[in-house]
Amino acid sequence: MIIPSQIELAETHKRISGLINKTPVLTSHFLNKIYNADLFFKCENFQKVGAFKIRGAINTLLSLPTEKLVNGVATHSSGNHAAALALAARLLKSEAFIVMPKTAPEIKKKAVKGYGGKITFCEPTLEARETTCNRIVEETGAYFVHPYNNIDIVKGQATCAKEIFDSGFKLDYLIAPVGGGGLLSGSALSAFYYSPSTKVIGAEPKGADDAFRSIRDNKIYPSINPKTVADGLLTSLGEITFELIKKYVDEIITVGEDSIIRAMRDIWERMKIVIEPSAAVPLAVVLENQEKFKNKSIGVILSGGNIDLDNFNWNSN
Amino acid sequence: MIIPSQIELAETHKRISGLINKTPVLTSHFLNKIYNADLFFKCENFQKVGAFKIRGAINTLLSLPTEKLVNGVATHSSGNHAAALALAARLLKSEAFIVMPKTAPEIKKKAVKGYGGKITFCEPTLEARETTCNRIVEETGAYFVHPYNNIDIVKGQATCAKEIFDSGFKLDYLIAPVGGGGLLSGSALSAFYYSPSTKVIGAEPKGADDAFRSIRDNKIYPSINPKTVADGLLTSLGEITFELIKKYVDEIITVGEDSIIRAMRDIWERMKIVIEPSAAVPLAVVLENQEKFKNKSIGVILSGGNIDLDNFNWNSN
Repeated sequence: MIIPSQIELAETHKRISGLINKTPVLTSHFLNKIYNADLFFKCENFQKVGAFKIRGAINTLLSLPTEKLVNGVATHSSGNHAAALALAARLLKSEAFIVMPKTAPEIKKKAVKGYGGKITFCEPTLEARETTCNRIVEETGAYFVHPYNNIDIVKGQATCAKEIFDSGFKLDYLIAPVGGGGLLSGSALSAFYYSPSTKVIGAEPKGADDAFRSIRDNKIYPSINPKTVADGLLTSLGEITFELIKKYVDEIITVGEDSIIRAMRDIWERMKIVIEPSAAVPLAVVLENQEKFKNKSIGVILSGGNIDLDNFNWNSN
Repeated sequence: MIIPSQIELAETHKRISGLINKTPVLTSHFLNKIYNADLFFKCENFQKVGAFKIRGAINTLLSLPTEKLVNGVATHSSGNHAAALALAARLLKSEAFIVMPKTAPEIKKKAVKGYGGKITFCEPTLEARETTCNRIVEETGAYFVHPYNNIDIVKGQATCAKEIFDSGFKLDYLIAPVGGGGLLSGSALSAFYYSPSTKVIGAEPKGADDAFRSIRDNKIYPSINPKTVADGLLTSLGEITFELIKKYVDEIITVGEDSIIRAMRDIWERMKIVIEPSAAVPLAVVLENQEKFKNKSIGVILSGGNIDLDNFNWNSN
């Protein structure tokens, strides 16, 4: 694999910056006090589609030769990547074909439709998703966009951490959640070029710890039957993100569900912003490792804010 | 009553600005589209104590002669004013005695304690609150700070709207919720001086419409047995706020509970920020009067973000 250069990251950022939100970095005296650290929250919950995923989706579509876009783009996803690809396609006057499990939450279906994505429903298995998506790609000639195992996606996601460093924040640590690894490997690449003294940490739920085990054992484990409230972190690493994480990420730390809920609640209550459970996993890492992070300056990527308000109950989680 | 001058408002703002947050004005393409208007949200949910109330509390304490502060300050409140007065007292090295009904939500009690307020619990009636507060004022010599019927409180709350105009926003309408009327009358005063072409509207729940009726019939009605999810808007007007609203507010518009919940939900889901029900009442006014507000430029004061996450359920409201 050819590692993207610093110039490529800068070009990526320039390419997409007119089409994404430059999200703010927020701080909270309260949370600094409770967590004994200087926390800098990069608010991708305020990003277009409510999650960082739009960065990679737009970059990928802008990096394609025009003729690849004429038949549209396709993916299978039940989450933020689906909405991101639908919006990216609309912004670039293309079309998005989205394969979603029929059991996907209504709010996600609504979001994809709202951005003009053409949804095909399938059975809720990875096999059904892939078969259905392959069929649609054959029928339409659409270009398949993988949610994370794609270097243009990784370069897009890298712009999130780059914005933090561009704004002049000096961080001892930068913590990003890890599911498929697009955001984490992109964040680590940006730190490598723009803030080499910053240690980058992947935050993963204990109930979906395939990335932790994959890096520990130097082989990609599939994510089998993950159990966590962090519904954006259920996927396993891809070859590209695995290699980048091995090379540039300092460590992956896993956390329990109670800590994720506590961190999420602290952010809602104290910062008055809505984040999704996956976005709370990095702060849960700080919570469970207070000695390690004491008085450190820590960037925390709040990856998204898409949560189904009807079906989330603080008391039952 | 002597109406505060423009110079007094400017002095007030200068006096308190080092001790409060200058909260952002946020916009949302989505909400503009759904509501058919250009909406500018002044985010007092990001204010200290999570609500605009700190503005008035700090101004009042800073406007007192020092000798009035030596024995502390007192109030009775189950809501944001209690927390605001506690924090204001702490910031000014004074002490706050807060009388709260013993039935007040745990989260509110916790907040007041967190700011160092000394709580005395009483029965949940207005009479018990007043009796208990009077007793404490007698015993301690503390200075009583009314939550809204106090011209220094009104001047403090006026700085919220002033910040919107100072930032250069040109508004056809400015909508603020109305409970006791401190925020609404302050907002109207600021518009009168800083943006005379802006019409100021008070937003009130139908289930607590005493301000609407008071202005219509030109007499202050008490708020008897109000029924609304907007728990910050249960009080009746005071003489001071009544006079100011009559003079400077264009109209008061009442809205139903369903609209309040819908507006609150739209803000949480689309803007990814946490607001309390009372803060959603102005947007509910736009929702119920779409013809009136079509394509208008509207300032919406999001008055606060303090909500008990455990006890709020979207499905049962």
